[in-house]
Amino acid sequence: MGAYRSVVVDTTQSPNAKLRPVPISTVKMEDGFWEPRLKLMRDVTLPSQYDIIEETGRLDNFRRASGKIGGDFKGAYFNDSDVYKWLEGVCLALAYRKDPNLESLADKAIAEIAAAQDEDGYLDTFFTFERKKERWENLRDMHELYCAGHLFHAAVAHHRATGKKTLLNVAVRLADHLCSVFGPEGRPGTPGHPEPEMALVELYRETGRGEYLKLAQFFLDQRGRGVIGGSPYHIDHKPFRELEEVVGHAVRSLYLNGGATDIYMETGDETVMAALERLWRNMAERRIYVTGGVGARHSGEAFGDDYELPNLRAYAETCAAVANVLWNWRMLLAKTEARFADLVELALYNGALSGISSDGKGYFYSNPLSDRGRTRRQPWFDCACCPTNIVRLIGYVPGYIYTTSEEGIWVHLYASNTAEVFLKGRKIRITQRTDYPWEGDVEVGIEPEDEEEFSVFLRIPGWCEGADVSVGGEVASGVGPGYFEVRRRWRKGDRVGLSMPMRPELLTSHPWVESNTGKVAIRRGPIVYCLEQADNPAADVWNIEVNPYAPLRANFRSDLLGGVVVVEGEAVACDTGAWKGKLYQPLKAVSALRRPLKFTAVPYYAWANREPGPMAVWARSS
Amino acid sequence: MGAYRSVVVDTTQSPNAKLRPVPISTVKMEDGFWEPRLKLMRDVTLPSQYDIIEETGRLDNFRRASGKIGGDFKGAYFNDSDVYKWLEGVCLALAYRKDPNLESLADKAIAEIAAAQDEDGYLDTFFTFERKKERWENLRDMHELYCAGHLFHAAVAHHRATGKKTLLNVAVRLADHLCSVFGPEGRPGTPGHPEPEMALVELYRETGRGEYLKLAQFFLDQRGRGVIGGSPYHIDHKPFRELEEVVGHAVRSLYLNGGATDIYMETGDETVMAALERLWRNMAERRIYVTGGVGARHSGEAFGDDYELPNLRAYAETCAAVANVLWNWRMLLAKTEARFADLVELALYNGALSGISSDGKGYFYSNPLSDRGRTRRQPWFDCACCPTNIVRLIGYVPGYIYTTSEEGIWVHLYASNTAEVFLKGRKIRITQRTDYPWEGDVEVGIEPEDEEEFSVFLRIPGWCEGADVSVGGEVASGVGPGYFEVRRRWRKGDRVGLSMPMRPELLTSHPWVESNTGKVAIRRGPIVYCLEQADNPAADVWNIEVNPYAPLRANFRSDLLGGVVVVEGEAVACDTGAWKGKLYQPLKAVSALRRPLKFTAVPYYAWANREPGPMAVWARSS
Repeated sequence: MGAYRSVVVDTTQSPNAKLRPVPISTVKMEDGFWEPRLKLMRDVTLPSQYDIIEETGRLDNFRRASGKIGGDFKGAYFNDSDVYKWLEGVCLALAYRKDPNLESLADKAIAEIAAAQDEDGYLDTFFTFERKKERWENLRDMHELYCAGHLFHAAVAHHRATGKKTLLNVAVRLADHLCSVFGPEGRPGTPGHPEPEMALVELYRETGRGEYLKLAQFFLDQRGRGVIGGSPYHIDHKPFRELEEVVGHAVRSLYLNGGATDIYMETGDETVMAALERLWRNMAERRIYVTGGVGARHSGEAFGDDYELPNLRAYAETCAAVANVLWNWRMLLAKTEARFADLVELALYNGALSGISSDGKGYFYSNPLSDRGRTRRQPWFDCACCPTNIVRLIGYVPGYIYTTSEEGIWVHLYASNTAEVFLKGRKIRITQRTDYPWEGDVEVGIEPEDEEEFSVFLRIPGWCEGADVSVGGEVASGVGPGYFEVRRRWRKGDRVGLSMPMRPELLTSHPWVESNTGKVAIRRGPIVYCLEQADNPAADVWNIEVNPYAPLRANFRSDLLGGVVVVEGEAVACDTGAWKGKLYQPLKAVSALRRPLKFTAVPYYAWANREPGPMAVWARSS
Repeated sequence: MGAYRSVVVDTTQSPNAKLRPVPISTVKMEDGFWEPRLKLMRDVTLPSQYDIIEETGRLDNFRRASGKIGGDFKGAYFNDSDVYKWLEGVCLALAYRKDPNLESLADKAIAEIAAAQDEDGYLDTFFTFERKKERWENLRDMHELYCAGHLFHAAVAHHRATGKKTLLNVAVRLADHLCSVFGPEGRPGTPGHPEPEMALVELYRETGRGEYLKLAQFFLDQRGRGVIGGSPYHIDHKPFRELEEVVGHAVRSLYLNGGATDIYMETGDETVMAALERLWRNMAERRIYVTGGVGARHSGEAFGDDYELPNLRAYAETCAAVANVLWNWRMLLAKTEARFADLVELALYNGALSGISSDGKGYFYSNPLSDRGRTRRQPWFDCACCPTNIVRLIGYVPGYIYTTSEEGIWVHLYASNTAEVFLKGRKIRITQRTDYPWEGDVEVGIEPEDEEEFSVFLRIPGWCEGADVSVGGEVASGVGPGYFEVRRRWRKGDRVGLSMPMRPELLTSHPWVESNTGKVAIRRGPIVYCLEQADNPAADVWNIEVNPYAPLRANFRSDLLGGVVVVEGEAVACDTGAWKGKLYQPLKAVSALRRPLKFTAVPYYAWANREPGPMAVWARSS
C-alpha cells in the first residue's frame, strides 16, 4: 500500500478532480530521455546537492536550532526550504526506485529536522533563540509559511514513498500549530510567498485532517484584504476571485494558482475555477514564452504586461517554469482538457528542463531566450530555489505519464515505459514503445488481466496537425489535438498505434510581441529549438536570417548533447563587421551584404552545455 | 554687456574649449518651428508652470523656510529644484526677449528664495527647522547638492539675461558655504545626483572664483571612492576616469558627463576627456534610441546593456534626452566635431521634444518608441523634473545655432533667423532663410560691417548623404557629413547656398537590437517618424509591414499637428483578428492573410497630441 500511493498529487478522493493519479512506483521508464535523467538525479544531482546543503550550513541551521551546535544562523532566512525541497526530490527518487544511499541521507536529514522542532510544533530554524519573539510577525517577507509548505510536501512525499511517518509527524505537529495560530478565530494572515496552499491540501489528502484544507482556504481568502500589504508583487492587491491577469512575482503567482486549483478539486468552488480560467487564458494567450517559460521581468521576477516577452532580458526563472507545470498538472486533473497537458509538456521539455545542465550539476536561475554568451550555468545560488525545484520536477515525471478516471486510462506523456495501472481495483499493464520526443510514432500496449471494456484516452498534442490512431485494424486519420478516446474491450496483447507526424515547423508570434517581430522559432514535436553558436561557425547566430521557403531537415545526432535531433536549414547572414561602430544604418546599405549559409538548430533545453557563445530561440527571417 | 553675455554655456574664457558661444539675445528666430515654440513657452508654458509651482506649495516651502508662513514642508524633498529650473527657463526666455510679466514673476520668486537663505549661506527648504541637523548627512539620496546646482544655473542665467545680481548673490553665498563644508580639508562627499558639477563651473565662469571650479573637480574626483555608497546607479562604482560604459541612472550619468566636459574645458585634463570619449562611443554606438532618447530601463531609470533598447518598455526619460543635448553641446564646444552636433540635433528634434505637447501644457516623463495608447500626456508629475527641463532646453535653442572660433563662425543648427555675431570684436550680421527641418535648402547671408576674411563652418548633418554648397558662383558638390569650411573675404550681401537633399529614408538597426529585428524606422532630414493610429485607420499600426521596395513620399501638411511633413508609403497588414486567443502560430498560417494598404507616418515628436491609440517608431518590414 505504501508503494502504491507514491503519487504526485493525490486526487484519489478529491470530489472535483476528474483524474486520479498513478503512482510513480508503478511506472518503469524505459526510454532514452527521462530514464537517464532520473538516474542522473539519483546518482549525481541529489548527492551533490546534499553536499552543498551541508557545506553551506543549511543542515547546521537545524542542528543549531536543536541545540546540537552553537554559532550563528547561516545564509538566507528561507534556507530551510532548500533542505525540504531536496528531501522531496530524494523521496520522489525513492518512490521511483529504492536507493539505500539516498534513503540514509534522507533519514539523517529528517532526524535533524525533527530534533529542531519546538515543543509547540513551531519549526523554522531562522526564528530561534533571539529571533523567537519575531515569529509570524512578518508574513509578507519572512517565508515561515513558505518553508512550512515545503516541509509538508517533503513529508507527504516521504510517507508516500517509504511508508515512514518520521517526517509526516513533524509536518502534522507544525500544521496543527499553524491551525492554532491562524484562522477566523485566530490571527489574520496569508503567506507572502504562496506555496503552503498546495502543501496544506496535500497534507489534508494524506492525513484526512479537514482543518488543513480549511487553513488553505483561509489563506486563499485572506489575500487582497490588506493583511500582508496589498502589493501586486505578492498577488495581494485584489481578492483572488477578482483577479483578471497573472501579475507580480511569477513563482508566487503560479504557486498560488496551483494551490487554488487544489482547493477547487476539494471544494468545487466554481468562483475559484472562474478566476483560474481567466488567469490561465491571460497567461497562455499573452504572457508565456514559446518555451513554456514565464515571468518576463527581472525587476520583481515578475510577469510583464500582455505581450511583453523580451528574449535577451527574459527572466523566465526555472522555478516559474516548474510552477507552470505544477499548476497545469492540477488544472488537467481537475478538467481533463488537453490544453493544460500541452503546457505541462511544453514547459517540461523546454523552459524548465533548460534549468539544469547535462552533467546534472549546473543550473540556470534565469532562462533567457537569447544570449550573447554571458549566461553561464552555476553550481548553486545564494537564493537556491531553482536547483532543488528542477530535481523535484524530474522526479514527478513518471507520475505524469498516466492518470485514470471512471472511464479508463489517460495517456498524457509519451516515452517508452512499462506501467501497472489499477482501474476499479483491477490491474492493467500498459506499455509504450516510442522514440518520443524525437519521433512521433508510439505503440501503446494494453494488457488487462482479463478481457475488459474501458477507454484509453490518448493525448494528441497541440503541436500535432493530425495524428493517425490504429487499433485492431481500424485507423482514425487526421485526428486533431485533444484527447482521443479509444473505447473497446481490451484483451492481453492489444496494441494501439499512434502516429504523430513530426516535422520541423517555423513559428511566428503575435504582432504585439515586439521582441519577435520579423523572427521565427523552430519547433519539432514538443521540442523548441535554438541556434547556438557552437553549431554555426559561419556567422553570428544573432545575424542569421532563416529562409522560410527552404526545406528544414531533422537529423538524429547520437554524438551530440546526449543524443538529440537537430534541425538544419538555409539562411542568409550579414557580417557583423558591417555594423562596426554603427547602431542605425540605412536599410539599403546593409541589405546588399548578406550571404547564404546553412544553419543547425539544437533543442533549447540543451543549450549552454558547450563553450559559451551567442544563442537565439527566435531567429530573424528573411 | 549684460545682454551680450546671455549665453548658454560660457566658454568665452575656457582655455580648452574650441568654440565660443553666441548670446541668445543676439539671435532672432524667424522660422516656423522654433519661434512659435519659444512664444508658446513664454505665453503658456512658463506662466502655467508658475501657477502649478505655487499651487503645489513649492514656493510656500521657501516662505516657510524664511518664517513668513507656518505649516509643514510640502511635497518631495527635491522640490526646490523645480523652482530653480523654472526660473532658469524664465531667464532664458527673458534673455531672448523682454517680457515684463515673466520678469516680475521671476523677481517675486527670487525674493522668496533669497529670504529663505540661512545666514551661513545654506539654502534648502527641506532641511530647515527640525531637519536642520540632518544637513549634508545623506548626500547620496537627499539632493541638497543637486538643488544647489540648479540654483546656480538659474542665478547664472538670471545674471546673464538681466544683469541683476539678486539671485547671483544668493548663489555665491551658497557656493561659498559649499566650499567651506566640502573639499580636501573639509568633508568628503559628492552629489548623489550629479548636476552641481556643470553648475559650479558655470558659476566659476560667471564670477571668476576659482574655488567653485576646484569644488566641481573635487566632486568629480570623489566618485568611485565609496563616499556615497559605490553603486552603479549613482555612477559611483568606479572613479570617473576608469568608466568604460554609460551605466546607472541615465540623467545622473549624462549630467555627470556634462560636468566632466565643463571641467575638461577649464582644466584640459585629458584623462577626463579620454573617459568621456569612451562613454560617448558606448552610448552613441550601443545605448541610444534612434530618437536620441536614452535610458532603456524603467528599473532604476537606467541605461541598459549594450543594444538593450526595447520600444514599448523604453524609459527614455525626457530629462535624459535633455541631458544628452547638454552633454553633447559641451563636447561640441570642446572638440568641434560634427558627431556631437548630430546628437544635439537628433535629441532636440525627436526624443526630447516629444516630452512636451503641442499646447505647451502636457508632458511625458517616459518617451516610449511604441505604445498601445496607454501613454498619455500629463499636466505635471509628483517628481516634476521633466516639465521644467524641456522648457530650459527650448530656451537654449537660440544659443545653439551659432558659435565662433578663432577661424570664424560655426553654423550648427538650421532655422530662419537673423543674428549678430561678434568676431574679434567686429560685428557680423548673419541670416538664414530656410524651411528646415522640413526642407534641406538653406540660404546663409553673411554681412560683415566691412569686407573681412574669416571662415564660415557649415554643419553637414550625419543624415545627409551629400550636400551642395555654393558661394559666389562656386559649387562644392556631394559634400559629406562634418563641418564644411567656407573661407573667403566676405562682404555685405554675400550669400552661401546650402542644399541638403532630404528624402525619406528607411533605417535598420544593429542585428543585436532584438526589439528592432525585421523592422525599419523612417527618418527624413533630422526628423524621426512614427506610425500613429490616428493617421492609419485601415490597420493596427503595430501590424503594418512597410514595403521597403515601394517609394516613400513626403508631403507638407499645414493642417496637421501645427504643420508637419508626413511620409507616406505602401505596406501590407495582417488582421489582428487572425491572432485572437493565440500567441504563437505556424508562420504558414498567417503569411497568407496579409493585404496591401497605404500608410502615413508623422514626426515622432508630435505623437500623442490627438486621440490615444497605438504608435510605433519601428515598423515591421515585409
